[in-house]
This record gives sequence, C-alpha cells and structure tokens, in this order.
Amino acid sequence: MNQTRYLCLSGPNLNLLGDRDISIYQHGSLDNIHTHLQQRAADLGEAIDCLQFNHEGDLIDAIQEATKTYAGIIINAGALAHYSYSLRSAIGSCMLPCVEVFISNVHGREEFRHESVLASVCWGVIGGLGKNSYLLALDALHHHTNMR
Amino acid sequence: MNQTRYLCLSGPNLNLLGDRDISIYQHGSLDNIHTHLQQRAADLGEAIDCLQFNHEGDLIDAIQEATKTYAGIIINAGALAHYSYSLRSAIGSCMLPCVEVFISNVHGREEFRHESVLASVCWGVIGGLGKNSYLLALDALHHHTNMR
Amino acid sequence: MNQTRYLCLSGPNLNLLGDRDISIYQHGSLDNIHTHLQQRAADLGEAIDCLQFNHEGDLIDAIQEATKTYAGIIINAGALAHYSYSLRSAIGSCMLPCVEVFISNVHGREEFRHESVLASVCWGVIGGLGKNSYLLALDALHHHTNMR
Amino acid sequence: MNQTRYLCLSGPNLNLLGDRDISIYQHGSLDNIHTHLQQRAADLGEAIDCLQFNHEGDLIDAIQEATKTYAGIIINAGALAHYSYSLRSAIGSCMLPCVEVFISNVHGREEFRHESVLASVCWGVIGGLGKNSYLLALDALHHHTNMR
Amino acid sequence: MNQTRYLCLSGPNLNLLGDRDISIYQHGSLDNIHTHLQQRAADLGEAIDCLQFNHEGDLIDAIQEATKTYAGIIINAGALAHYSYSLRSAIGSCMLPCVEVFISNVHGREEFRHESVLASVCWGVIGGLGKNSYLLALDALHHHTNMR
Amino acid sequence: MNQTRYLCLSGPNLNLLGDRDISIYQHGSLDNIHTHLQQRAADLGEAIDCLQFNHEGDLIDAIQEATKTYAGIIINAGALAHYSYSLRSAIGSCMLPCVEVFISNVHGREEFRHESVLASVCWGVIGGLGKNSYLLALDALHHHTNMR
Amino acid sequence: MNQTRYLCLSGPNLNLLGDRDISIYQHGSLDNIHTHLQQRAADLGEAIDCLQFNHEGDLIDAIQEATKTYAGIIINAGALAHYSYSLRSAIGSCMLPCVEVFISNVHGREEFRHESVLASVCWGVIGGLGKNSYLLALDALHHHTNMR
Amino acid sequence: MNQTRYLCLSGPNLNLLGDRDISIYQHGSLDNIHTHLQQRAADLGEAIDCLQFNHEGDLIDAIQEATKTYAGIIINAGALAHYSYSLRSAIGSCMLPCVEVFISNVHGREEFRHESVLASVCWGVIGGLGKNSYLLALDALHHHTNMR
Amino acid sequence: MNQTRYLCLSGPNLNLLGDRDISIYQHGSLDNIHTHLQQRAADLGEAIDCLQFNHEGDLIDAIQEATKTYAGIIINAGALAHYSYSLRSAIGSCMLPCVEVFISNVHGREEFRHESVLASVCWGVIGGLGKNSYLLALDALHHHTNMR
Amino acid sequence: MNQTRYLCLSGPNLNLLGDRDISIYQHGSLDNIHTHLQQRAADLGEAIDCLQFNHEGDLIDAIQEATKTYAGIIINAGALAHYSYSLRSAIGSCMLPCVEVFISNVHGREEFRHESVLASVCWGVIGGLGKNSYLLALDALHHHTNMR
Amino acid sequence: MNQTRYLCLSGPNLNLLGDRDISIYQHGSLDNIHTHLQQRAADLGEAIDCLQFNHEGDLIDAIQEATKTYAGIIINAGALAHYSYSLRSAIGSCMLPCVEVFISNVHGREEFRHESVLASVCWGVIGGLGKNSYLLALDALHHHTNMR
Amino acid sequence: MNQTRYLCLSGPNLNLLGDRDISIYQHGSLDNIHTHLQQRAADLGEAIDCLQFNHEGDLIDAIQEATKTYAGIIINAGALAHYSYSLRSAIGSCMLPCVEVFISNVHGREEFRHESVLASVCWGVIGGLGKNSYLLALDALHHHTNMR
Repeated sequence: MNQTRYLCLSGPNLNLLGDRDISIYQHGSLDNIHTHLQQRAADLGEAIDCLQFNHEGDLIDAIQEATKTYAGIIINAGALAHYSYSLRSAIGSCMLPCVEVFISNVHGREEFRHESVLASVCWGVIGGLGKNSYLLALDALHHHTNMR
Repeated sequence: MNQTRYLCLSGPNLNLLGDRDISIYQHGSLDNIHTHLQQRAADLGEAIDCLQFNHEGDLIDAIQEATKTYAGIIINAGALAHYSYSLRSAIGSCMLPCVEVFISNVHGREEFRHESVLASVCWGVIGGLGKNSYLLALDALHHHTNMR
Repeated sequence: MNQTRYLCLSGPNLNLLGDRDISIYQHGSLDNIHTHLQQRAADLGEAIDCLQFNHEGDLIDAIQEATKTYAGIIINAGALAHYSYSLRSAIGSCMLPCVEVFISNVHGREEFRHESVLASVCWGVIGGLGKNSYLLALDALHHHTNMR
Repeated sequence: MNQTRYLCLSGPNLNLLGDRDISIYQHGSLDNIHTHLQQRAADLGEAIDCLQFNHEGDLIDAIQEATKTYAGIIINAGALAHYSYSLRSAIGSCMLPCVEVFISNVHGREEFRHESVLASVCWGVIGGLGKNSYLLALDALHHHTNMR
Repeated sequence: MNQTRYLCLSGPNLNLLGDRDISIYQHGSLDNIHTHLQQRAADLGEAIDCLQFNHEGDLIDAIQEATKTYAGIIINAGALAHYSYSLRSAIGSCMLPCVEVFISNVHGREEFRHESVLASVCWGVIGGLGKNSYLLALDALHHHTNMR
Repeated sequence: MNQTRYLCLSGPNLNLLGDRDISIYQHGSLDNIHTHLQQRAADLGEAIDCLQFNHEGDLIDAIQEATKTYAGIIINAGALAHYSYSLRSAIGSCMLPCVEVFISNVHGREEFRHESVLASVCWGVIGGLGKNSYLLALDALHHHTNMR
Repeated sequence: MNQTRYLCLSGPNLNLLGDRDISIYQHGSLDNIHTHLQQRAADLGEAIDCLQFNHEGDLIDAIQEATKTYAGIIINAGALAHYSYSLRSAIGSCMLPCVEVFISNVHGREEFRHESVLASVCWGVIGGLGKNSYLLALDALHHHTNMR
Repeated sequence: MNQTRYLCLSGPNLNLLGDRDISIYQHGSLDNIHTHLQQRAADLGEAIDCLQFNHEGDLIDAIQEATKTYAGIIINAGALAHYSYSLRSAIGSCMLPCVEVFISNVHGREEFRHESVLASVCWGVIGGLGKNSYLLALDALHHHTNMR
Repeated sequence: MNQTRYLCLSGPNLNLLGDRDISIYQHGSLDNIHTHLQQRAADLGEAIDCLQFNHEGDLIDAIQEATKTYAGIIINAGALAHYSYSLRSAIGSCMLPCVEVFISNVHGREEFRHESVLASVCWGVIGGLGKNSYLLALDALHHHTNMR
Repeated sequence: MNQTRYLCLSGPNLNLLGDRDISIYQHGSLDNIHTHLQQRAADLGEAIDCLQFNHEGDLIDAIQEATKTYAGIIINAGALAHYSYSLRSAIGSCMLPCVEVFISNVHGREEFRHESVLASVCWGVIGGLGKNSYLLALDALHHHTNMR
Repeated sequence: MNQTRYLCLSGPNLNLLGDRDISIYQHGSLDNIHTHLQQRAADLGEAIDCLQFNHEGDLIDAIQEATKTYAGIIINAGALAHYSYSLRSAIGSCMLPCVEVFISNVHGREEFRHESVLASVCWGVIGGLGKNSYLLALDALHHHTNMR
Repeated sequence: MNQTRYLCLSGPNLNLLGDRDISIYQHGSLDNIHTHLQQRAADLGEAIDCLQFNHEGDLIDAIQEATKTYAGIIINAGALAHYSYSLRSAIGSCMLPCVEVFISNVHGREEFRHESVLASVCWGVIGGLGKNSYLLALDALHHHTNMR
C-alpha cells in the first residue's frame, strides 16, 4: 500500500525565517521547520514534501500538480495571502484539504495582514503558534485523512 | 507537584452543538468535545476544566479567575467574538496564553463572522477543523507550557 | 389537546416604557402591552407568556428554552437588536418562527437604530405601529401556526 | 356617513407574483392578495382599492390623488423602495398614514434590498409574513383610523 | 425676428408647492412661481414656458425636445436630482445651458439631498433663495443669451 | 414552424445616438444599428424587433410582455443600468436569456458608469465594441437558442 | 436714513483671478468683479464693500465685524470652502444672510471641490455662472433686504 | 434634610485596575479610587456609592434603580463604552446627569477605543487624567447639583 | 501578403477548465476552446495563437512581445483581472486592441470578482457567454481589423 | 520662588460666547470664564493668562512660546479642533501638559464635531460641563503640577 | 545677467526642528538646513532664500509673490500638507516648479500623514532622507532650470 | 578596499520606457537612465548594477540576494508598487537602505497610483522628477553610505 504524503508550501520571503534576530520570527529557520515536519510525518507513518517559492506562479503550479501525489496541503503563503486571488483560485479548484498557517499572530500586526483572501477556500486555519502552527496543521491533516 | 490544568470556555449558544442536524455543526455535542478534551489532557498527564456560558459577564468572570488555577485558556466565544470588546479586555488583561478556536471556517460564512475582535489579544487561533480545533489547541497549550 | 402558547420577549430598558412622558414612547407601559397580548391570545383560544430582561444572556437562555413549550416568539430586543450577534445566533438556532417588533419607527431615529442584526434570521418584522406592533405580530404567529 | 376607504399600491413587477414557482414568492398571485384584502376590508365595514404600476410616476400620481379619497395607504413599492427618493417625497408630502409592506424577508436577500428609502417617512413597516403582510397592514390602518 | 424663449422644468411632487403650511416650502405655489417667471421674461422682452412632471421619462422627453425651441433651461428636478442618471444624460446630451435650482437650502436637510447627480452637467446652480432661485436663474440665462 | 424572434431594447437618451459629433458616440444612429440587427437576423433566418424608451416603466412593460413572443433580449439600458433595481427585477423575473450591451467602454468613463445593477441578472454582457456590441449579442443569442 | 450696505468677501488666491489665461477663470480680474458689484449696488441705491484675504483668520475677523455695518454677505471662500469649519462657525454665528458663490461649476472639477462645509450655514448658494454669480447674489440679498 | 448622594459605576475588567504594572493603568486600584471619591464626597458634605460590574445587564439595572436615590452618576463603562447601545439607552432614559470618565487618554490607544457610544447621551465627559478623572467628575456633579 | 494573426491569452488556473464537473465551468476544456478559436480563425482566413500562463510575469512578457506579430489580443486573465495593475500597465502600453473575456458571469459570483482592473484599458469586454465569449471576441477583433 | 503660571487658549469665534441667546452657549461670555479662571488660580496661589485668537497661526505661535513661561495649557480650539493638524503638531511638540476643553457636549451636535484631531496629543480632555470644563481643567493641571 | 534664485518655504512648527532630542527629527535645526542649502546654492552659482511661517496665509502670500523673483520653490508645508487646499491652490496657480519635501518618511507615521493634498500640484516630491531631502530638491530644481 | 556598489531595480513594463511618444514618459529609455546612473556612480568612485524584471518573484529574488553585494537599493517597482505586499516584505526584511523612485508624479494620475504599499518600508521616496529621480536617489544613497 502507498504511504500517505502531504505537501507543505511556503510563499515569498519565508526562506528568510531565522535569518535575523527579529522578535516575531524567533522560531528557527524554515529548514528547521521542514525537518520537524518530516520527523513528525515519519512518526505518523506518513511523509511530507516541503517547498518554498518566491513566485506566485510557482505556488500555483505546485498546487495544480499536488492532486496527483498528495493527501493534503499545508500552506503559508506569506504576504501573497493578503492579495493573491490567483492563489485562492488554485486552492479553490484543487480537490485536497488545505490548512493555512501563520507563524506569528497576524491580527497584532499591520492592518493589511488581518485579512487572508485564501482563508475562505481553505479547510482550516492555524495561526500565531510559531513552528507549532505547521506541526498542528500536519496533525489536523493526518486526523482528517485517517478518519475518512 | 501540582498537575497542569487548562480552562476551556465556550460562549453563547455553543451548548446547542449537535442538537440538530445542520451541516456546519456536524461535530458531535459540546459534551462530546469536552469528553475528548479531558481524555486527551489525561493522556498528557494534565487536566482541563470545560465551561459554557450564555452571559458575556460570566465569561469575563471566569477569565479573571483563571490566572489562579490554570496554565492556559482555550476559548470559542461564539458570536461574542465579533463584538465583545469587554471579552477582549478580559483576555488582554489576563496573563495566560489563550487560543481562540472556531469549529467551522468562519471565512466561508456571513460577513460579520470574518472578524474576531479577540484575535489580536490571543496567542493563537485555530479554526475550521471541527472538534479537532479544540484538541489541537490543547496540544498547542501543552507544548507551550512544557517548553518554557 | 394542548393549548397553543407563544412567548413575548422584551430586551433592555423596555421595562421603562410609559414611565415618562416622551413622545416616541406614548404607547402605555409594557405591562399594559402584555395585558393586551394576553387578552388577544385568549380571544384566539391560545396563550402567551411575556418576559422582559436587561441581560442579553437571559434572553438567550429564554430563547433556548422556548422550543419545548412555545409555537412562536415575538421579540423586541431593544438596543440589543443593533449589535447582539449572540442573540441573532440564538434566534437562528431556535426552530420557532420569530417576529421582530419595534414600537416606534426606527428609521426616523438615530443612524445606529436603522439596522437590526436580528432581522435576517427572523421570519418577519413589524415596526412603527406602537402597541399594535405586538398585537399584529401575535396575529401573524396565530395565522402561521393554524395554517400549517 | 361615508365608508372608510384605503388604497393599496404595488410597484414594478409585483403583477408577476404567483406567475412562477419560485420559493420566495409562494404566496399566490397579486389578484389573490387583492381579493383577500377586499374581503377583510368588507368584514371591517370598510373598503380598499388595489392598484399596481410599473411606472414610478404613476405611483406618485396615485399618492398625490389619494388624500382626497382615502384614510390610509398600504404600499409595496417593489424594487423602487431601494432608490426612489421621488416616491419618498410623495409619501412624505401626503397627509395619510402609510404602511410599507414586503412579502418576503428582505434582510435575507441581496444587500441592496436591506435598505428602504421609504421607511423613514412611512408610519409603519410590516415584512416577511407573505400575504399576511398586506392583511396585517390593513388591520393596522383600521385600528389607527378608528382610534382617532 | 424670433423672441427668445426659455423652458422651466419642475420634477416630481413640486406641483404640491404651497399646498401646505410647512416651513421649508413657504414660497407660494408653483403656479405663482410660474406667473412671476413669465412676468419677468416679458419684462426682458422674452418668454418662458413652464412645465411640471411626476414622470422621469416625461422630463427626459421635454429636454430632448427643448433644443428646437428654447435658448436655455431652468430645472428643479425635485428628488430625481439625487439619483436620476438618466436625467443627467439628457441634460448632458442637450446643447442648451441649464441652470439647476433648489428652493430651500438642500445642505441643511437630509444627507441624501446634499448631492445632485445633475450638478456637474449643468452650467450653473442656484439654491436656497426661495422663489428668487427661479427668477435669478432666468436672469442668468438672459445675460448668457444676450452676451453671446 | 414559427420563426425565432428576439427583442432589442434601448433605454433613455439612446435615441440621440449619432445626433452629434461626440467621439464616444461615433457609431452611427440607433436606427442604423437597428437596421444592421434586422439584416443580421434575416441572414440567420430569424427576426428581431427593436424598441427605444425614455421611461423606465415602458422598458419594464416590454420585458414583462417579451416572454410570450421572444427567444431572447438584447438590452442597452443607458443610464438606467446604474440605478434601476426595478429594471433588474424585471430582467430577473423574465425567463429569457438577456445580453446587456454597452456601446462605449463604460470603465473608461465616469465612476458611476462602472457598475451596472443589471449585470448580475443578465446571462451575458458585451461592451465597448461600438455597433458590434449589438451584433455580437445577437450572435450569442442565436447560438444559445439553436444549441438547446 | 442710512444707505443699505453689503459685504463681499473673497478667500485665498482669488486675488489672482484674471492673472492668467486659464479657461475656468476667464471672467476678468477680481477688481473687475468688484467694480461691477459696486455699479450694480449703486443702481439699486445701495452700497457694497469688497475685500479679499489669504488668511482664514482675517475672513473670520471680517465676518465677526460685519454685523455692525452690513445687511448681508456675499462670500467666495476659495479652497477654504472645502475644509474651514472655523469659517463655517463664523458664518453660522453671524446674524446676517450669507450667499456663497462659486465662479466656475465646482461639480465638474476635482472631487474635493464638490463639498462646501459652508453651504449648510449659508442662506443660499449660486455657482457656475462666472462673474454673474456675484451679481445675482447681490440681487438676491437686495430682494431679501427689501422684502422684509 | 437628606444628604446628596451620587453613584459611581465601573464596567467590565475595571476591578483589575492596579493589579499589574502596566503603564497605562498606573493609577492605583479601583478600591483606592473609590476611597478617594468617598473622602472627597465627605469633604463636600455629600456621599457617593461605588459599584463595579462585569455584566452589562447589572450596569443597566443599577442605572434604572439610580433615579430613586442619587443626584448624579459617574460612569466608566470600560470596553462596553464602545458598543453597548443598551447601556446608552439606559443612560438616555435615566433622568440624572451622567459624567463619563476614562482613566487613560483613549485617543492615543486602539482605533476602536476612539468612539464612545455613550458620549452623546452623557452630560459631560472627562478623560485621560488618571484617578483625577473620577474626582473632577464628582466636582462637576457637585457644582451642577448645588447650582440648580 | 501576410496572414492576420491574433493572440489569445489565458491566466492562472484556466488550464483546469473542464477538469471537473462544476456548474460554472461546464464549457469544455481550454484546449477545446482553443481548437474552436483556431477553426473560426481559419474560416475567416486568419490565424490565432493560444497561450495559458500561471505566472503574471509570463503574461506581461507575452503582451510586450505581441505588437510585433499580432493584430489584436483576447485575454481572460483569470483571478489576476481583479488585482494585477502590472498586467493593466502591460495592456495599457501595448498598441493592440484587447478584448477581455470572462466565461461565466462574474457579477453573479463573489464580490471581489465584480471589478476588473483591466477593463478600463481594454477596448471591449465580453462576459458570461461561456465558450462563445472567446469566439465573439475573435469576431470583434476580425471586424475591427478589416474595417480599418 | 516663582509663581506657577498656566495658559488658557481659545480658538476662532469663541470671543462671541455669550453674545447671543443660543441654548448651547448659555455659559456667560469668554471674559466671564477668564475672570473665573483667574480667581480660581489666585485661590490656588497660582496664576493663569487667557488669550483668544481667530488665527490658527497665532495659536501655534502662542503654544511655541508657552514652554518658557507656563506649567500647563488649557485649550479650547473651537472648530480648529476638527481639522487643524498644524495645531496638533504644535501641541505634540510642546513639552507641557495640555487639557482640551469643550463647553458643550460635541457628541450631541453635528457629525464633524465628534472628532478632535488634537485629542490624541493632549494629556486629558474635559467636555460638556459648560464654564466648569475650564475650571476643572485648571484643577487637573494644578494637581498634576503639584504632585510631580 | 541675473543670478538664478530659489525659494525654500517651511510651514508650521518646522522652526522647532532640532530643538529636542526626538528620533524622527535628528536632523539638526532648520537654520542648519538653511545654511547647507545656501552653501549648496552658492556652489552652483545660484542663490536661495529660506523662510518659515506658522500662518497658512503667510505661506500663500509668499508663493503668490514668488513668481516675480524665483525660478523654483522647495516646500515643506509641515502638517498643512495634509489639509490645506488653499496652499494647494496657491501652488497650483503659481507658474514655478515646486518640489515638496518631507524630512522623515511620512508613510511610517500616523495615518493622516500618508496623504499630501499638495502632491498632485507639485512637480516632484522627495521624502524620508532627512536634511538631504532639501538638498536633493535644490539639485532637482537646478537641473530643471539649467536644462530648459 | 572594495568599491561601494548599489543595485537599481525596475519592475514590470519599465523596459518599455521611451518606446513611445507618450507625454508622461518623455524621459528617454530605461537603458539611457541606466547609462546615466553608471556614469554618475563612476564619478562618485562607486558602481551600480541595473536590472529590470516583469516577474514579481524575480524582483524578490534580487532583493534577497542584494545584501551580500550592495550598499543600497534604488527601486521603481512600476505597478507592483500599488499591490505587491510580497515585494514589501522583501524590502522590509532586507537590511539595506532602499529609495523608491517614480518617474512621473503619481499623484496626478489614476487613483490607484496614489498609494505605494512599499513606501512605509523604504528609507526614502523620490518622485515626479523624471530621469533625475533615479540620479538623486543615487546621490542620497551615496551620502548615506559615506556618512556612516
């Protein structure tokens, strides 16, 4: 039997996580998050692929391709979350459950960060919990996949 | 040594969960969610108390009292999330990490449900994942408490 | 066979009706309205219970309890009509036909009074007709109940 | 002594009521409503004339003429309710009590239907109660006329 | 040589001017204003035709016809001034200088009266000066016509 | 077998098309457009009737009557497109496919022209293409009618 | 007996009128307008003083002083009309009839020019008629003064 | 003769004042403020009762009861000031002079704190002056009571 | 002589057309549309190249290149239509006539879909007519090209 | 030792206070308020200088000069409070505690009066209490100065 | 030949620059900036006059006078930039190239500072670069003057 | 010692500069601007690399890479300036001083061009001065780099 596989997508500038010593991003590097995700997936007997793109179009391509291979998507679209209706269409058209994650609490930051145009087409949203936002999203997808 | 203890608060009308066969609330009764939370807390060697109130003032009282006994709060304020600045003040003044949860994805429902006045004073937010929203919030508080 | 029974709910400050000599409230006291409602219900071979609360939570409790006993609800939520999404949820979740009433014409008063957040989840709305707003709401519920 | 006489006015497209099998208009034809109104008026020892116009100007003409003959007006202006300030001026200038009626609950439909520019110059408003909206409006005018 | 001839158009409900004893309309009847306009035009060796319509379409027809006969238009569109983009198109397409008049100061009345959608396509606007608004508009057209 | 027949409706002031030498209307007269439409319909073995009205009510009457005779409607409502919710109701209630046309590109003109309240109840919209907007709308209706 | 005397006030930058060859200001210099006003006042057996200020405070001082000497005020506040609530207070507190004038049609210019915060406290407004705006305002004040 | 008596009401979360070392609340505990108010009232030969509630309904009850016993009300409604139209109705219906107080300057804090829905029905407002806001409000009520 | 050649551009996610059985997209695949376009172009003795991109930048590149080869552009920018001012600049700078097409009626869908930032720089817009939107756009470009 | 000295500044049109018999200004003349302020200051063993200006620039000059001589400022900026960001900058740059006062309750008057652009840079605000607003502001400054 | 001469104008409160040790204004005093400007102008073989005013009217006077003497204007209007449409008119009417400068980046400060009503009538804008904003503006004017 | 090196980035469609004879872009080609920048850098003993991209992602990549090589960035993001929060995040995360430049005065063009979402995270902004906007930005970076 095939192993269940998830996709974790991160948007523009998230490759810079942990690069600098700024309070809202004190959550280790993106690589570090990816390693934790993969360990957790392995613990669950599943697998996860982790990608980061600075191009909106690359994220859309990846989502379009995902249906063939993956059982669910974790997405942190970075600032694209606030205006990319194209990304929203890609998520809305894809048949997989998506969980949108934010590392810091967007509601305590600039006004434009309070709204995600992706939220209404995602299955769930997890935010503000640092690195754990990603791990909990994986747990949520795992429960969802195995309860069906 | 004392056992770590959390508080789970639910606001107006959430006692009706599972009463009826409406698609967005197909997540079992609130009692059922409470039972799952307590089992999960026991598995973690911790405990959780679960309360539901229809009165805004009762929720504020409970939050004010919480600092003495609890290590963190899970709150689903129901419709109060959309206008109760008093509840926001109570959460903002309390020294505990709070995770706001929503059972269904509020972004896919009526316009007034898209904004929570509580979000910016909560530590994290988890939404759309049904009963699991509560369980993942407990996991998040557990990680937070034991990592300090 | 059981007698059909309705519930009439009034919100904050409506107990003051008729207390003072202000033009927009020249419609007798709330007790007086309740008496007329009960006489009219008796004439129809039915009954009505009339309650007033200053606490939002008490109104929600009463609506949650109503399904067991009543065939319909008349509600004048007072100023809560303009912001209480919790009351809206209670009405929206309750299985009974609700008629929202206003004593005076809210459209000729302050701006914030022009919108009722309850209106879209009520079955009907009757406003501006003084004490008769309540009596006509009773007639509407009576027709509705006996036509089914 | 002269018989009390009321005027019932319906605006654009309301002549189509009952033409089709659409859920929000399952209230019989406008002719059927007119017949019920006339029976009810006869029961009260009074009379009512019922007119429908697709032209804003015809409605204004009818309201201007009404003072000579009628003791009150029932008006369902259709979509004109949402923008016709000219109709509002006609109602505001006429000395008769007007009751605005809506057949379905406008608050549960499109955004533009939530506001009536006529409401603030009408004596009362009755909405959402189907055919009964008209009949209750007649009762309200009857009470008003005979209580003076 | 032909006599210069102007057209004075009044919109919905303005035929009611002077009918009642309301402070903002204490300026005599519309007939009285028309008589004064005609006397003033005669004094200037010119003529003016005065029409009032409750139908938006009749006003549009009159403006379309006006180019053949008149040297300028005085228009008080009543409440149509606040929403009739069709009337605006008619004025904007007609080659004649138009002066928009208001009898009372619209800026001291309801919010919706503060904006005229006609103003930007009229040559001038005169408001608040009672009956004199019309007479001064005639003077303005006279100066304009004879200065060319 | 009966010949397929369409209705082409034009709103206020469109009878002035071609009257004057204004750049945005350099598309010939409305009569010229009607002639082209009728030739094109004849080429398709079908027919089209073309009407223009300055009165909103006349347009509503025509749409209400259309179901008996026509297979589809082309409508250029002129400035009524921007505020006539009554026209919208007429189109929404009529069972025929409607194509809204604009001669010039409304998005490059005044702000109020950017929104058509009719668009959401029409089947399609064609704009900016001059006289061809009408002809392409006829083609669209023809394809639609013959593909069913 | 004393001669009736009016005050004509012009605000910032209006001293530049006629300085340059810009189409919207082709109405001669402000001095030229003042001369015409004084001739017209003399023709009426009255007088008018004409002042221009670039300082908001000077305009306020002049209005405060005006009650002692003048029977009415003509004011073209220039760009101050769009934001000077202090000037509005001065006009609102002064007991004299004020007529606000604009030389060009403000509704056809920049958005911020469409609203005058002075309009609601002025007795009347005359705009778009070039130099004649001032002369007609004088006529209006003259009629008003001599009709009392 | 009876002693003049005032009522001081504080809303949700104000019982927490002084609990923690946050800069905007460095004004001592609410008990401390109450003690100062009572001393000051005693100095004036008057008395003041001081109550705090977390429930909106309790504040409304207290205001409704106040007319029997008190000569004036000092109210700091906490976050309820920003949305409780019910509290506003209670104050608006009560016959006593009310002074709204804020401890810190609300205009320098979050956007939602800039507007108080209570302000327009209060007699006066005093804000930003710390504990002295309460004491000055007492002085204001004292002057008002003894000047009548 | 060179054959006239057009360019048809489709934006993000439009490659998914026809993939799934969703009502608003029951118009066959994008390939199917492209085939119909090419057949229609051949019938007209012309040619059309059809491209789809998920990257905004690729669409901009294609438009910049288009002037060298094509006589006109058909563009369905997908969700980019609602926010890509860069695409708008590309269209606005390119010298070719562009026709914007939508497959479904955007006015009956989510609010953000009601506005296209591209519309004001396109020559025309055709929407709601399914696959025919593209074919009619080709006809429009053909007429335009051959009438010059 | 030097006597503590305060500055009281009043803005445009406040010199007219008491001039006329208008209800909202029944608080005596500004001179009368100044006399009361000086008596109260003398009672406190301190002094106060009182100035009124119609020019925004004069108020700014006075605030800039104030630091050399005064221990605090009372300011009633009149209508400048609603738009003078320059005055706001002057207050924000000056090192002295400022108390903004309003004589009447601005929240019960015109919309534009509800917001003061000065409030967020003032230390406190006192409004609605008539002449006492000034006297209580002096008390607040006195307490502040002597508690440091 | 005459020396080229520029005018540098600074608005309200800019005379306070460097007075205090606030981070956003750590750019030396205005006198210091003026000295640098004059040295730089001398280096270029040109001259610059530098003036600062707290009165809007004085700035308008200076701009009106400038055309006679100067080849360009550098203006930092301080807070007047955000509301003074009169200053805008003065700049818009003056024939000289104006460069608006800001010392600090206004976009990172309060909301009201994000918009300058002067910007659209200035030739250029330079902001955020401290003292250099002025010097670069001088360079820009110099290039402009000598390239013509 | 290494030579100081700057990066000049231009966004979508700016490669078209100078292609056509449109008034707002009469500033030579982008290559021409790049040449001037490099000459000016050479004059200062420094260097500058100049890149243009139509892809948002390429601009983000370039900014992320820039820290390793460059001392500062000049960016003209074209239309991306008005919506690309991703570009804003890239600039906000990069440690280099950025100067945003616009060639023409954006405040005199379409509404959407008035706001740059990049401005608040840039060190400075220079606009409206044509090619000189770029050169002055280089001077600003040069001063900044050499003053540290």
